[in-house]
Amino acid sequence: MNFRILGRFLGALLLLESIAMAACGLFAWIDSLSHDDDPYPLFLAAMITAAGGAMLMLGGIVKIDRIPRREGIVVVGLGWVLCGVFGSLPYMLGDPSLPPADALFESVSGFTTTGSTVMTDIASWPRGILMWRSVTQWMGGMGILVLFVAILSYLGMGSKSLFRNESSFQTGEATTARIRDTAMTLWYIYVCITAVCAVGLKLMGLTTYNAISHAFTVVSTGGFSPHNASIAHYSHWTNGWLIELWLSLFMVICSISFLFWVVLLRKRWKRLKDDEEGLFFIVLCFASAVVIGSGVAASQGMHPLTALRHSWFTVTSIASTTGYGTVDYASWPGFALILLAGLMLLGGCSGSTAGGLKVSRLIVFLKTARFEIVKAFRPNRIFRMHVNGNALGANDRAQTMVFVSLYAFIILISCFLVALVEASNEMDMITAFGAVVATLANIGPGFGEVGPAENFGHLLPVTKVFLSLLMILGRLELYAMLVLFMPSVWKRY
Amino acid sequence: MNFRILGRFLGALLLLESIAMAACGLFAWIDSLSHDDDPYPLFLAAMITAAGGAMLMLGGIVKIDRIPRREGIVVVGLGWVLCGVFGSLPYMLGDPSLPPADALFESVSGFTTTGSTVMTDIASWPRGILMWRSVTQWMGGMGILVLFVAILSYLGMGSKSLFRNESSFQTGEATTARIRDTAMTLWYIYVCITAVCAVGLKLMGLTTYNAISHAFTVVSTGGFSPHNASIAHYSHWTNGWLIELWLSLFMVICSISFLFWVVLLRKRWKRLKDDEEGLFFIVLCFASAVVIGSGVAASQGMHPLTALRHSWFTVTSIASTTGYGTVDYASWPGFALILLAGLMLLGGCSGSTAGGLKVSRLIVFLKTARFEIVKAFRPNRIFRMHVNGNALGANDRAQTMVFVSLYAFIILISCFLVALVEASNEMDMITAFGAVVATLANIGPGFGEVGPAENFGHLLPVTKVFLSLLMILGRLELYAMLVLFMPSVWKRY
Ligand SMILES: [K+]
Ligand SMILES: [K+]
Repeated sequence: MNFRILGRFLGALLLLESIAMAACGLFAWIDSLSHDDDPYPLFLAAMITAAGGAMLMLGGIVKIDRIPRREGIVVVGLGWVLCGVFGSLPYMLGDPSLPPADALFESVSGFTTTGSTVMTDIASWPRGILMWRSVTQWMGGMGILVLFVAILSYLGMGSKSLFRNESSFQTGEATTARIRDTAMTLWYIYVCITAVCAVGLKLMGLTTYNAISHAFTVVSTGGFSPHNASIAHYSHWTNGWLIELWLSLFMVICSISFLFWVVLLRKRWKRLKDDEEGLFFIVLCFASAVVIGSGVAASQGMHPLTALRHSWFTVTSIASTTGYGTVDYASWPGFALILLAGLMLLGGCSGSTAGGLKVSRLIVFLKTARFEIVKAFRPNRIFRMHVNGNALGANDRAQTMVFVSLYAFIILISCFLVALVEASNEMDMITAFGAVVATLANIGPGFGEVGPAENFGHLLPVTKVFLSLLMILGRLELYAMLVLFMPSVWKRY
Repeated sequence: MNFRILGRFLGALLLLESIAMAACGLFAWIDSLSHDDDPYPLFLAAMITAAGGAMLMLGGIVKIDRIPRREGIVVVGLGWVLCGVFGSLPYMLGDPSLPPADALFESVSGFTTTGSTVMTDIASWPRGILMWRSVTQWMGGMGILVLFVAILSYLGMGSKSLFRNESSFQTGEATTARIRDTAMTLWYIYVCITAVCAVGLKLMGLTTYNAISHAFTVVSTGGFSPHNASIAHYSHWTNGWLIELWLSLFMVICSISFLFWVVLLRKRWKRLKDDEEGLFFIVLCFASAVVIGSGVAASQGMHPLTALRHSWFTVTSIASTTGYGTVDYASWPGFALILLAGLMLLGGCSGSTAGGLKVSRLIVFLKTARFEIVKAFRPNRIFRMHVNGNALGANDRAQTMVFVSLYAFIILISCFLVALVEASNEMDMITAFGAVVATLANIGPGFGEVGPAENFGHLLPVTKVFLSLLMILGRLELYAMLVLFMPSVWKRY
């Protein structure tokens, strides 16, 4: 482990973060002229973060043109942790303020685009702090887009081969130049989508502040909202249905690989049909919305169109791992909740800002399982597998299966640990499961006492820290976080 | 597909089943002299089953010395289904009687050693029928012991390599002679263990009938009991603790690979220490009992020793997938239930009569996961894996991971389907999960409305049939059942 490389990159990351904080502080300062706002905690946090970043930079080496694999992975894991820790400062330094574990939870929930919250009365917080809260999600979304191509692609989870034909996204050791090129293309699209979404919301009657806040958290599939009632805040508007439809459109767009939109921009029409992952995701959303909508209409005697409106918004919000809410789905029938839990676990497509297991892994899994079943009675059968138009080897399949198993195992162990720690609060199975899946799959709301009408504020501090770790674990697709716990990664050489 | 081979073996299987039915009928006939018993439905069922078997035999070929792989697998899958269907006759033909779906559920629950029941007042049934109920579990346990070595070993789930050194259990195409040899060794041990268990129970004061009934269902880790209260029937006896301890001892014994006891019989002491699976299982049982016992003592203000007595019995009953009950664990804290759910999913060791995923797969998974994490930052590292003292190749690892993923996927889909079908009964998530895991992992009792104090009687007929399929699916470790749904397996050649 070369600690000077770590210092260099983590320091730069913190300096970037302090700039974003200062920008939010500047917004709060201007905003304080017309509203009740407070730039002080943001400026103070920016200064502390800048000081921390500068110190790390001084300890690091000055120039480097490629990051070795091991250091690259550790930078990713530690980077998310450090951003979360320093990002919690604005929540602690002002008035109102959160205790440390709560602030960490809220901050990590932002940077991992999870959207779980410990705040009960969100609207009572200064607008500058809430803007920072949205900005953390927007930056987290940007971060994950770079990671997918630059770092995650060689972490061995089977996504490697999914875009082999896309020459500008070749895998291998990452050079800083390559990361920068890739980042620029994806960020350009990301910024454009954000702008279109915000303008649309503004035209639908939202204030500029609310339009930008929501645009930030929808393209990152983050799901933070400055309103206590989330999107239900707009449900009684005459064009409430339009706002919901507009948001669900962007939730779907941002759950499909951003490489799909690159291909679209470059007008390579022929390559578009290869994106079976995106097609699968959209069909799944429609089917789920219809099934759940029928169930809700039947069980609650609701008008079918109203039920469909709620089920479509909830399904896209959950499947895209955004976590916006318009209704409390906790009262829906059991099968609808199980389907929602399945969509939570699945998440969106690889290369998007969505969390979860990813649709591509489900596709690989289904094809591999069929192969194994046939192999039981035809052991010598040769089997070729293609996903998104690319061939998938035995090694990619094996890695994907390990990932799926590991995901299931981590959920089970985490549920047990959370319920054990919260035994004094008499936590039940459903709440433990909801808290773990909501954070690990970066959804936001869960089930039971952490359901859509509740928040995570009533949990113990140690549980909040643990769930924060789960958020990072899920966001970084396990490996970049798990390696931090392997002693051999820290060996000097 | 050679249907004449199918007819030959399935016919023989039904004839065997009819003999067992007739034996139970004979018992009921003698028993009817001293008790209120009724041999009629058993004799009638035996005749129908014998007729069915004879017809299949006549359609089949007379002599065969080896079963081709494809036919072997289909015989296994169809065999369990057919035994379940004909085994349901005694429950339907007498008085009281069960409706068809209930009778099928009860019968399949027997042959798969699951132990879930639809009977509310078990003790009101004739003793002959209840003996048949126990005998189906005992025969199911025998069946699975043969299958492990003869058929399952080449179905590709990573157990192949676990006993490579045991020369008499080499894998490959199965000849009937090999199956017979293997069967004889394992059955000898199986019968001996049953006899020791029954004699012990008799000495502890149980009637001969109850001693034999319970011995049948404990060595098969089946869990049917002729008492409404299951083993709680004996809890108030002064030596109730001894009976519980004796039963839990045999539950543990029969959850460890029977090959372990073969090795013990042959006095190959050195090979014993290679059984890391058995050691892992026992340590896990002790640890879980202590954790759960502490939790129950703390949350319910119970005396620690009483809590430990209950937790030890429940943990061994659940981990061995037997499903005997002495207490209603539904009232235990959330973390205890999650741990129990984990033990349900895990099950016992490969080569035992226990169900679930099997401990060996967990060990393979843990080692593979560690390997994949290290590979993320050391991609060229060579890694050798040993389980139970045998080397495990990349292919075995991959198969195990597919199995674990497939298991998780089937649970999720099944929960959804069960809850969807039972939507009119307002089934909740926990009940759906409990019903699926209890049947797929061959446990018996589940959670929620199918918990230890409840039964499966209130479910819809279609749900009962579906859960019966899940029991066979789990008992046959998925593949032998799943291939029946692949069209290509049925092709003539
Ligand atoms: K989210
Ligand atoms: K059982």
